[in-house]
Amino acid sequence: MKMIVAVVQDKDSQRLSDALTERQFQATRLSSTGGFLKSGNTTLMIGTEDEDVDEVLSIIKENCESREQLVAPVSPMGGNADSYIPYPVEVQVGGATVFVLPVEQFEKY
Amino acid sequence: MKMIVAVVQDKDSQRLSDALTERQFQATRLSSTGGFLKSGNTTLMIGTEDEDVDEVLSIIKENCESREQLVAPVSPMGGNADSYIPYPVEVQVGGATVFVLPVEQFEKY
Amino acid sequence: MKMIVAVVQDKDSQRLSDALTERQFQATRLSSTGGFLKSGNTTLMIGTEDEDVDEVLSIIKENCESREQLVAPVSPMGGNADSYIPYPVEVQVGGATVFVLPVEQFEKY
Ligand code: NI
Ligand code: NI
Ligand code: NI
Repeated sequence: MKMIVAVVQDKDSQRLSDALTERQFQATRLSSTGGFLKSGNTTLMIGTEDEDVDEVLSIIKENCESREQLVAPVSPMGGNADSYIPYPVEVQVGGATVFVLPVEQFEKY
Repeated sequence: MKMIVAVVQDKDSQRLSDALTERQFQATRLSSTGGFLKSGNTTLMIGTEDEDVDEVLSIIKENCESREQLVAPVSPMGGNADSYIPYPVEVQVGGATVFVLPVEQFEKY
Repeated sequence: MKMIVAVVQDKDSQRLSDALTERQFQATRLSSTGGFLKSGNTTLMIGTEDEDVDEVLSIIKENCESREQLVAPVSPMGGNADSYIPYPVEVQVGGATVFVLPVEQFEKY
């Protein structure tokens, strides 16, 4: 038995939870902030059998991997027009930091 | 030293915290959602000496074990009368998912 | 690789996060309540190389160690005047409870 602790971006966390549930893995979500990832993040805690660790890791990778995204410019509302960029820009989104912890005993009551 | 991570239903978490405190075990509550248990849940983190693990586990079992409860019918408010059940029904409540993690070092400052 | 889980007082957690960031350690903050420390607390999760554990522990100690603080009396607002103490009192603040957990695998996606 292992406990997988994954820190992922908020925007990816729902899709990841759904993908895990679909393959019968249960994830508990802890609200978290800051740290490993710049913007709002969520910490997922997933209990898995040893032989399922690789499958869970690849589900996390598929759904959360760091990637570039084109972001449409937002027109400044009475704001700093100097910083206005009138064309879409690529930003880095997603990413996951994952720890696999050993579990000595597991119980369900 | 071990760290016991217990995911329990919100409704059981206060009683569990009280029972742990009464026997001098300290629990930190992390707000959590979804996952191991269907409805709202709380994750408790309890640091314990190796020889106290069994006692903590039995306190969790006593206070959180999955059980059936009679739920009085709620009269539908302008709602779907078809789904109205006019007698109490048994629902599953409670339950706990518990991980015992090894601790390599423990410090108090 | 280790995961350091530190439960600290809310009032110390921002300073601790800043001190960790300054030395390139990343901490994820989980909102937590009760337990190891009396008042509001925060749980920080810090992933570190084995050789950096001692440095992280001393940063936690420096920023969160339990200490005495003089608290100015608060005038009771239409409250219980009997319990009013008209001079500053020393109270215990801060403190940290820290667990170092072994990590079997660490991934960044
Ligand atoms: Ni195992
Ligand atoms: Ni031990
Ligand atoms: Ni290591």
